Amino acid sequence: MSQPAWKSFGPAPTPKPFRLALIQMLGSKDKAYNLKHARELIFKATAGDGKKSDLVVLPECFNSPYGVTHFPEFAESINFDPEKKYDIITSPSETVQALSTAAKEAGIWLIGGSMPERDGNKLYNTATVYNPSGELVTIHRKVHLFDIDIPGKITFKESESLTGGSKLTYFDANFGRIGLGICYDIRFPEQAIIAAHQGCIAMIYPSAFNMTTGPLHWELLQRARAVDNQMYVSMCSPARDMSADYHAWGHSTIIDPYGIVVATIDENEGVVYGDIDPQKIADMRAGIPVRSQKRYDIYPNLVESAVTGK
Amino acid sequence: MSQPAWKSFGPAPTPKPFRLALIQMLGSKDKAYNLKHARELIFKATAGDGKKSDLVVLPECFNSPYGVTHFPEFAESINFDPEKKYDIITSPSETVQALSTAAKEAGIWLIGGSMPERDGNKLYNTATVYNPSGELVTIHRKVHLFDIDIPGKITFKESESLTGGSKLTYFDANFGRIGLGICYDIRFPEQAIIAAHQGCIAMIYPSAFNMTTGPLHWELLQRARAVDNQMYVSMCSPARDMSADYHAWGHSTIIDPYGIVVATIDENEGVVYGDIDPQKIADMRAGIPVRSQKRYDIYPNLVESAVTGK
Repeated sequence: MSQPAWKSFGPAPTPKPFRLALIQMLGSKDKAYNLKHARELIFKATAGDGKKSDLVVLPECFNSPYGVTHFPEFAESINFDPEKKYDIITSPSETVQALSTAAKEAGIWLIGGSMPERDGNKLYNTATVYNPSGELVTIHRKVHLFDIDIPGKITFKESESLTGGSKLTYFDANFGRIGLGICYDIRFPEQAIIAAHQGCIAMIYPSAFNMTTGPLHWELLQRARAVDNQMYVSMCSPARDMSADYHAWGHSTIIDPYGIVVATIDENEGVVYGDIDPQKIADMRAGIPVRSQKRYDIYPNLVESAVTGK
Repeated sequence: MSQPAWKSFGPAPTPKPFRLALIQMLGSKDKAYNLKHARELIFKATAGDGKKSDLVVLPECFNSPYGVTHFPEFAESINFDPEKKYDIITSPSETVQALSTAAKEAGIWLIGGSMPERDGNKLYNTATVYNPSGELVTIHRKVHLFDIDIPGKITFKESESLTGGSKLTYFDANFGRIGLGICYDIRFPEQAIIAAHQGCIAMIYPSAFNMTTGPLHWELLQRARAVDNQMYVSMCSPARDMSADYHAWGHSTIIDPYGIVVATIDENEGVVYGDIDPQKIADMRAGIPVRSQKRYDIYPNLVESAVTGK
């Protein structure tokens, strides 16, 4: 299935305050367990800590162990058709069906973390998004594959089994336009710059940093994207499982437009809650108006030829 | 005087290890004193802490108080001609003459902080660069003017008296290509992205953050530019003078390509020293190879149409 690309989304919805919940989930090698556990945690996160959540997020590869040998085994065909995006009946994916049902029953927007996706003979690392009616509104295929090699620390090569996506992704909720990336995508400032230009009030990255890059760059990259683009930024990690092959950093975090940590957590399973306040975005943008001070006479505006799509 | 713009510099010099020294200088309202004091500190910084420095940096507006009413009074005509860049005899600027002499006598590369510059009826915030022969090799006019308004905290409007520069600036030293920005320029990621693409191994920003934006963003922005572009980044501030109108944050800092602080200081006068190691750049770029993983099929390469010049 090929995905059409749009140059622009048109005007973004008027931003409204909303409650964001990040599920730092402890996964396993058992997909059925992972889907059941995710469902339980979605309801827990929706209820919130005394305040109902509006947008709930699962981590990267929440339904599968994170590893190139596991991706083919756990991959599902999603069959997303952006022209029929509100019809999930046609998706053969049990994960999509489970997440759709949970989003509808909980009555929340859901970023269903990411999952290994099969499309023809290609595999992707793919995030799925559902509205409170359980409709699959968009998917994001990780654009920048995680191929790194820090000798003596960590070597990982997603490209051994995965293909990178071919578009940048946003979706329009009733509380505003939200940009999507997955994990390693956050290392590429271009993606968040373009999202902010397209009217996104937050960039959300289901992610799984490790014990080397986590302490070095996890918080720094989120704070950098937040301040540069004067938007909220959030990464949602799996909980750390020292019995798994890949040791996730954890520390799911919400950062405000000033680069300040709104909420975070250690490496254990739990839910992180934060209020997203569009007024804070407006104040930051008025106070330090870098958006209107760009010098597009000297360097190009990245947005003009970016490939973006729903 | 208009400045020609080059699309590219051609190949950068082979990077070599070098010693960087940042002079966190306590200025005054007396230009003659500032020039004399800067000269003393240049010799001190050159001698170093047991190891000779190769590149010495002064802070933003080191020869003038920082304030829109002071700029016209302290401004000098530099008369830089990039076609005759190795001839400073023609510069009527007493500051340029003093810095040229100091660089030559000390035998170091010198980024002479910045100074208010007059060119016709326009004023600029301008950095000057000298080689160890005392030749003025380039100037950088602050591109992004510091116009901010954070109610109850800080309001400043450089554009009340200054004009923004019209190019991005690099220079080639025997130890590598160095990118230049001034203070607020660091808030614009485009500038450092382009510099790294053009072969710069470091971005250096003579700067003067304040007591509001300093604690919020001084270190964060440097670390962000360093990690995103896998290069050294450094900001050199004036020392804090609580009797002045503008209270500088201080904390002159050197950041390595991993985003780690190499050296820093508090708010008082002093010199910050650090070793710049091209091997660390090479290691970071090989380990996390984001430069070759950019997706220019999805978003544009900023470099192609950037206005850069010597």
